[in-house]
Amino acid sequence: MTNDFPAGLALRSPRVDDHARVLAVLDQWWGGLGGETGSRERALLLPRLYFQHFTGTSRLAERPSGDLAAFLIGFFSQDQPEVAYIHFAGVDPALHGRGIATALYRRFFALARGEGRHRVLAITSPSNSASRAFHTRIGFTELPGAPEAPPSVQPDYDGPGLDRVVFSIDLPADG
Amino acid sequence: MTNDFPAGLALRSPRVDDHARVLAVLDQWWGGLGGETGSRERALLLPRLYFQHFTGTSRLAERPSGDLAAFLIGFFSQDQPEVAYIHFAGVDPALHGRGIATALYRRFFALARGEGRHRVLAITSPSNSASRAFHTRIGFTELPGAPEAPPSVQPDYDGPGLDRVVFSIDLPADG
Repeated sequence: MTNDFPAGLALRSPRVDDHARVLAVLDQWWGGLGGETGSRERALLLPRLYFQHFTGTSRLAERPSGDLAAFLIGFFSQDQPEVAYIHFAGVDPALHGRGIATALYRRFFALARGEGRHRVLAITSPSNSASRAFHTRIGFTELPGAPEAPPSVQPDYDGPGLDRVVFSIDLPADG
Repeated sequence: MTNDFPAGLALRSPRVDDHARVLAVLDQWWGGLGGETGSRERALLLPRLYFQHFTGTSRLAERPSGDLAAFLIGFFSQDQPEVAYIHFAGVDPALHGRGIATALYRRFFALARGEGRHRVLAITSPSNSASRAFHTRIGFTELPGAPEAPPSVQPDYDGPGLDRVVFSIDLPADG
């Protein structure tokens, strides 16, 4: 298998038995943010179904040792034939700054374009400034937020107290 | 529009602005189970994305007044062309016993069969005996659980402490 992915990582689609591994690194990579409640909330955002039904549009990046280095869980909108959606992505903090997230996103963009999807959406928490900077840097726009909220913030987007910022990028047809 | 749905209810696909309404009734219908934590966990199981990208395979049932009576959020597996998945369904407890959940499921089965999907999967918490009885009654089988667990229970299925029972039904080709 050829592999031009950064940092010597190997890329593959996840399998169902990767689910527990990904949840385990979430706690490490997010630094245990929010304690047990945070851990439970991250697990609920990433139920096993993504590792059963949306693996074709998702990717794991592994070190030569097999240890997990990064992941991207995405899907193609079932209702909107032009839209692809990145649900959850993460990179081992020890590997930040090596272009891994950018490479994962660009692979997903190429996959989406290849299937006729020319818009990619993603969301994050308003306080996640690293995620907001990353998405802006690679070309996403933050959609307008509520007038009374801080810039780009959509209050209660995912439920009471679950404010979100929504990112959108239109992919060039021949990029 | 003709409507042979039980209890005089009208059926339609959800829109994105139904998301907050469904989350609001979850707390009522589940009796506030688990307090604020339970409410937050239910919200995380039903993020807005289902009301943006999987509405074509989901349905709301409303009273003539417009009040929500029941819902079913489902999707077709992106990876497994024979599989459809019911992610979350609920009926107003005031309307239990009128065949509404059965009717919602049967509509979903018909939709799935019409698109060549002949297996439907769903999950529930092991302690949700009403859900387990309902799924068994309409023809689902509980998949085998872990040998050391209570019957059909798959420990940590959706993450640490998130045990689940998995239901499967094979749809007849001409049902």
